[in-house]
Amino acid sequence: MTDSFKVGTHEFKSRLIVGSGKYKDFQTTKGATEAAEAEMITVAVRRVNITDPGKENMLDYIDPKKYTILPNTAGCFNADDAVRTLRLAREAGGWNLVKLEVLGDTQTLYPNVVETIKAAETLVAEGFEVMVYTNDDPIVATRLEEIGCVAVMPLGNPIGSGRGLANPFNIRVIKERAKVPIVVDAGIGTASDAAKAMELGADAVLINTAIAEARDECMMARAMRDAVRAGRMAYLAGRMPKRAFASASSPTEGYIWD
Amino acid sequence: MTDSFKVGTHEFKSRLIVGSGKYKDFQTTKGATEAAEAEMITVAVRRVNITDPGKENMLDYIDPKKYTILPNTAGCFNADDAVRTLRLAREAGGWNLVKLEVLGDTQTLYPNVVETIKAAETLVAEGFEVMVYTNDDPIVATRLEEIGCVAVMPLGNPIGSGRGLANPFNIRVIKERAKVPIVVDAGIGTASDAAKAMELGADAVLINTAIAEARDECMMARAMRDAVRAGRMAYLAGRMPKRAFASASSPTEGYIWD
Amino acid sequence: MTDSFKVGTHEFKSRLIVGSGKYKDFQTTKGATEAAEAEMITVAVRRVNITDPGKENMLDYIDPKKYTILPNTAGCFNADDAVRTLRLAREAGGWNLVKLEVLGDTQTLYPNVVETIKAAETLVAEGFEVMVYTNDDPIVATRLEEIGCVAVMPLGNPIGSGRGLANPFNIRVIKERAKVPIVVDAGIGTASDAAKAMELGADAVLINTAIAEARDECMMARAMRDAVRAGRMAYLAGRMPKRAFASASSPTEGYIWD
Amino acid sequence: MTDSFKVGTHEFKSRLIVGSGKYKDFQTTKGATEAAEAEMITVAVRRVNITDPGKENMLDYIDPKKYTILPNTAGCFNADDAVRTLRLAREAGGWNLVKLEVLGDTQTLYPNVVETIKAAETLVAEGFEVMVYTNDDPIVATRLEEIGCVAVMPLGNPIGSGRGLANPFNIRVIKERAKVPIVVDAGIGTASDAAKAMELGADAVLINTAIAEARDECMMARAMRDAVRAGRMAYLAGRMPKRAFASASSPTEGYIWD
Repeated sequence: MTDSFKVGTHEFKSRLIVGSGKYKDFQTTKGATEAAEAEMITVAVRRVNITDPGKENMLDYIDPKKYTILPNTAGCFNADDAVRTLRLAREAGGWNLVKLEVLGDTQTLYPNVVETIKAAETLVAEGFEVMVYTNDDPIVATRLEEIGCVAVMPLGNPIGSGRGLANPFNIRVIKERAKVPIVVDAGIGTASDAAKAMELGADAVLINTAIAEARDECMMARAMRDAVRAGRMAYLAGRMPKRAFASASSPTEGYIWD
Repeated sequence: MTDSFKVGTHEFKSRLIVGSGKYKDFQTTKGATEAAEAEMITVAVRRVNITDPGKENMLDYIDPKKYTILPNTAGCFNADDAVRTLRLAREAGGWNLVKLEVLGDTQTLYPNVVETIKAAETLVAEGFEVMVYTNDDPIVATRLEEIGCVAVMPLGNPIGSGRGLANPFNIRVIKERAKVPIVVDAGIGTASDAAKAMELGADAVLINTAIAEARDECMMARAMRDAVRAGRMAYLAGRMPKRAFASASSPTEGYIWD
Repeated sequence: MTDSFKVGTHEFKSRLIVGSGKYKDFQTTKGATEAAEAEMITVAVRRVNITDPGKENMLDYIDPKKYTILPNTAGCFNADDAVRTLRLAREAGGWNLVKLEVLGDTQTLYPNVVETIKAAETLVAEGFEVMVYTNDDPIVATRLEEIGCVAVMPLGNPIGSGRGLANPFNIRVIKERAKVPIVVDAGIGTASDAAKAMELGADAVLINTAIAEARDECMMARAMRDAVRAGRMAYLAGRMPKRAFASASSPTEGYIWD
Repeated sequence: MTDSFKVGTHEFKSRLIVGSGKYKDFQTTKGATEAAEAEMITVAVRRVNITDPGKENMLDYIDPKKYTILPNTAGCFNADDAVRTLRLAREAGGWNLVKLEVLGDTQTLYPNVVETIKAAETLVAEGFEVMVYTNDDPIVATRLEEIGCVAVMPLGNPIGSGRGLANPFNIRVIKERAKVPIVVDAGIGTASDAAKAMELGADAVLINTAIAEARDECMMARAMRDAVRAGRMAYLAGRMPKRAFASASSPTEGYIWD
């Protein structure tokens, strides 16, 4: 299946983007990333060393020739901090494809969409290719696309919650209205969540905690790899309709499924 | 991963059992079965010719040396018919591993558990290895296991409905109490449904309509293959807990998730 | 609204049947029952004294002239015990309208439908008006109606679980096929659960733990009273359809609501 | 129960706010509003005449001495239009308590939260008491409260969709963090939805389409009246916990409820 995932000027075979946080050490990060067969890994540049070769550096484990490093702004709570963080990252490592996240507070880790929009405007104007974390509001998603972001990344549920997709309908509406790729980011807790996100039409998913906190990280990474492929194929294959019963004469109208 | 699926005296690598109904022709049945990498295929012996070599015969397409043929009693609405059907099949083809289903009516295709129990008692006494389709009632499941069935196959939702798992809790309770394999049979509509069934601990799933009625049967068969593997690995890997928020201080008690 | 609830030879204005277990004392039972404006209260005759006037007797608190006492067989795990229990109750108190429940085990409190069917056959033959607790299997429900039970009482979820309706679809299918009243029994945890059961078409609900274990039993009893009325009126009023969006041009087909 | 609902300088006994749109005529609006026992009714001042006494005027049916009229900005797609609309309404009718909604587009009727925030800032500065329609994003809700809105009104689902609460978790998080009243606005389709919103802690609900499009508007209005009371009482009464099973020894941890 030649079904590549294009983001801005980049192209990938894998539709599973992984995070690099929450692992016990870089060796485990490396093992899980390989098991996931990911091609892109996002890194919180305020928390993980990828710029100073004099200290333990994640890039000694995750080869930037093999993986696309996606610097992110985790830990930034306003537009200015986020913009400054990504400028520094670009200067230090040359990274132009970035993940913008401006969080609303430390408890929920929900995005602050007003500050996110502000930061996105600045970063796009400065030539960054911006993948942007946001809530699941279709109007905000469209605004971010209009600004020029190369991918919109709505949450499925709060970061680190592992509760799957709170509002699949919104994810689907966002996808139907978008011309840029939609990446479900945050909330995925297990393989079926990842499959479901892909079945809704998401172009990719970003997973961190669900792999890093599984009892067996590498096995869960493989599970996610297969789930993303399964969900993508199911989406492309065109699923059967939902019905009350198999029988042709079954009343399908008006049933309350849930 | 040497994680084999054992049913009675049989052992399989694949945990995806496929059906043979609803395909437009045997060639498509064959293609989808191969794409699914299934090792066991169930056949309604009252509807599909697998015994008369003089007519078009499914076994000319599905090689019984390569696949385990699982005769089933689809179309039987009482114990006597089901027992008679399987006796004839065993005489004709030697099949001892069988799938018992006694349906309650033609509209819902729900099982008639009283007749099912009666038939299971007779078939087990006659030496059949009985895999048995049933509702999702844990007490009935235990009864069928006590009778000596080699696998219990609770429904996820009505046959041919494609609505996934109506009551995941019951599937899980059935699994926790069972010593024989639990196979989720009926209701799976897309890949994430299959993954979820496996994540609940099901030993295998049986899928027919969701593959046969997909726009692209073979691609959906591959999706199901990967989804079953993904769900199995996620189950074995031990998923992260569900939480309100990532933050350690987040109140996780008392939230209403759904 | 003259919308009475008829069961066998009885007729009620209230569609909220209450239980009598789990209260700290009979005074609280009485208060909650009055607050609920119930007219029928079910009593586990093996556990609660309603026959011996020499001991503390529930009927000193719950006036049998004002309330219909519905003896039930809680604590019975086979047909014989259940039948014997109700015979004794009838001899002692003259109760002919009874609630049959034959449980499968002490952990889940799920019904044993095989034993339930057997007991129902005997009791109906002996002239009892049998309201019968069962699982949510439509085929079993029809069987119990055919036997002659005057009401079928499918569970929403396990007794005492408070998790609402696990499988609303099955409740609805049972209702659509039934000529006798359908009473949702077990699983209701809060007011919206009761309303939802009634919206599905249930003729009544039976609630015990959700009232008895609320922090304020009487306020919860009033909440349930209003919720049952609300759900009943919503059912009769004919609800609006579910749609993707309000706009006439909105695509309503093919959305995955859940 | 003296459990009043306070919004800004106003106080109400009823927690059910109704809309005035979508009725076939003012007479039906009046009947349903009375049946709902509402005390506050919201009116789209761009669409419904409440200012010109020379034409058919809604206020001839809905007595402003008896009901609190809540002018809203339905049909406004940017901050300027919304502000202008409410200024005109205040000049014409003296209304100071208003409902602000700035929509993102005509298809989804989702709010545009950026324009909503802008309009709220202006209106609060001009002395309006602003009740504000918004998405279910807790960060946006807090921002609107900080601006000085007197109530925050998150959607349950799109306006006119009747699909209930898409993301109950978010409604609950918004409520837990708020000091101003939270009113669930949009999405409620039937009585149990209204009850559930109140059980999550919402201070009130606003309902229009679900009443106006019911087959029997007045009966549905009464259903909603009772459902709101039921949900409120259930919230105050303190519901029982959800459990796997009633039995004390039941394993309640780790079950996947949904």
